[in-house]
Amino acid sequence: MDRPFVFINSAMSADGKISSILHRQVRISGKEDLTRVDELRASSDAIMVGVGTVLADDPGLRVKSELLRMERLKGGAYENPLRIVADSLARTPPDAEVLGAGCIIAVSRAAPSGRLAALSDRCKIFVSGEDRVDLIELMRFLHGFGVKRLMVEGGAILNWSMISAGLVDEIYVYVGNMLIGGEVAPSLVGGAGFSVNFPKLELISLEQFGEGALLRWHVGDVRPDSCKKIE
Amino acid sequence: MDRPFVFINSAMSADGKISSILHRQVRISGKEDLTRVDELRASSDAIMVGVGTVLADDPGLRVKSELLRMERLKGGAYENPLRIVADSLARTPPDAEVLGAGCIIAVSRAAPSGRLAALSDRCKIFVSGEDRVDLIELMRFLHGFGVKRLMVEGGAILNWSMISAGLVDEIYVYVGNMLIGGEVAPSLVGGAGFSVNFPKLELISLEQFGEGALLRWHVGDVRPDSCKKIE
Repeated sequence: MDRPFVFINSAMSADGKISSILHRQVRISGKEDLTRVDELRASSDAIMVGVGTVLADDPGLRVKSELLRMERLKGGAYENPLRIVADSLARTPPDAEVLGAGCIIAVSRAAPSGRLAALSDRCKIFVSGEDRVDLIELMRFLHGFGVKRLMVEGGAILNWSMISAGLVDEIYVYVGNMLIGGEVAPSLVGGAGFSVNFPKLELISLEQFGEGALLRWHVGDVRPDSCKKIE
Repeated sequence: MDRPFVFINSAMSADGKISSILHRQVRISGKEDLTRVDELRASSDAIMVGVGTVLADDPGLRVKSELLRMERLKGGAYENPLRIVADSLARTPPDAEVLGAGCIIAVSRAAPSGRLAALSDRCKIFVSGEDRVDLIELMRFLHGFGVKRLMVEGGAILNWSMISAGLVDEIYVYVGNMLIGGEVAPSLVGGAGFSVNFPKLELISLEQFGEGALLRWHVGDVRPDSCKKIE
């Protein structure tokens, strides 16, 4: 399949949580890690999040470092990578930070037209799938659009949907020096979960980073009989 | 407070899960890690689990290596560490593997007397707390009983109860090379979760181990205003 190289980048607590039971953003990593994430962003053609992340954190998803933006420009790229939101029902608020030039909202055919109208002058809209975004079609579209390297910044449901569809090549996990706990706090990979054929990973690298640890994994084959897709 | 040195040992998937949505035991770590865990067991005076773990996995909680058991005997200890189950309502089945000489079932005053009678000839019973085991009293009792070093082997609820009560000194986490996923799959620390004052950890060591990574954390102060206890 023609699709971008896809990697997930996420920070989780030592007990695997990406936010607390309140679903509010928790600062898990330190300054060094923010720089690392900014570099990963600058190295990507596009950055994708799920709409849950937009609603919870309202991220801008731009490259913070002016130097890195200038380098992108010099290399012939746009200042910032494209920004993609997987948003089956077009719930992205019309004043979300992610909107503006270079933003694509990927919706399903079930997205209400009123909401699409409210968004359409601040982003491109890509429609696929009946009631959920068809991520495979989206990947094919992005590839055709010139996206060779896609960074996924969560949350738990998008991570699950991408992984269970076999669309993820690598995962960077920063394990922070804190505990969050909570049976219902979101963890790195949510959704329905695997129950039999758990995908195998290969550890590419491991290093202490700031006060935590940075793990980089290669994702092996995801066997379709172990997947139940949800969005 | 007079209590043992307490450490948690657990294996989790790269996405922080200790078992799947089916709550069935998943083999997360390899052979090297089983040896490591056996050595940790042999180095402890007692091993504790929650009753959920007994009901799900029926672990024996003994030292597997004959050599290590012999070394314990030579050092004047029992062949195996004590085995403790935190089991507020005495739900441990009377044929559980954990039972037998050296087993203590810690119950609350709400535990039905019929169940206690069924268990009492196969273990010691320690009663504390109204409807939930009072873990602080239990720690004090174990310390008085000669337990200087206590290993906690989960699951998610006991980990939470012990951590939120400020009773844990260190956490060993083996991060395995697999994904489990699932919004409702148990992760390393369950329970109510912290929502404000997330306990800070200090990374003692980090190493590649088998195909995964082994992280050892020191647990900092747990501030009581951030805790809601559940069992």
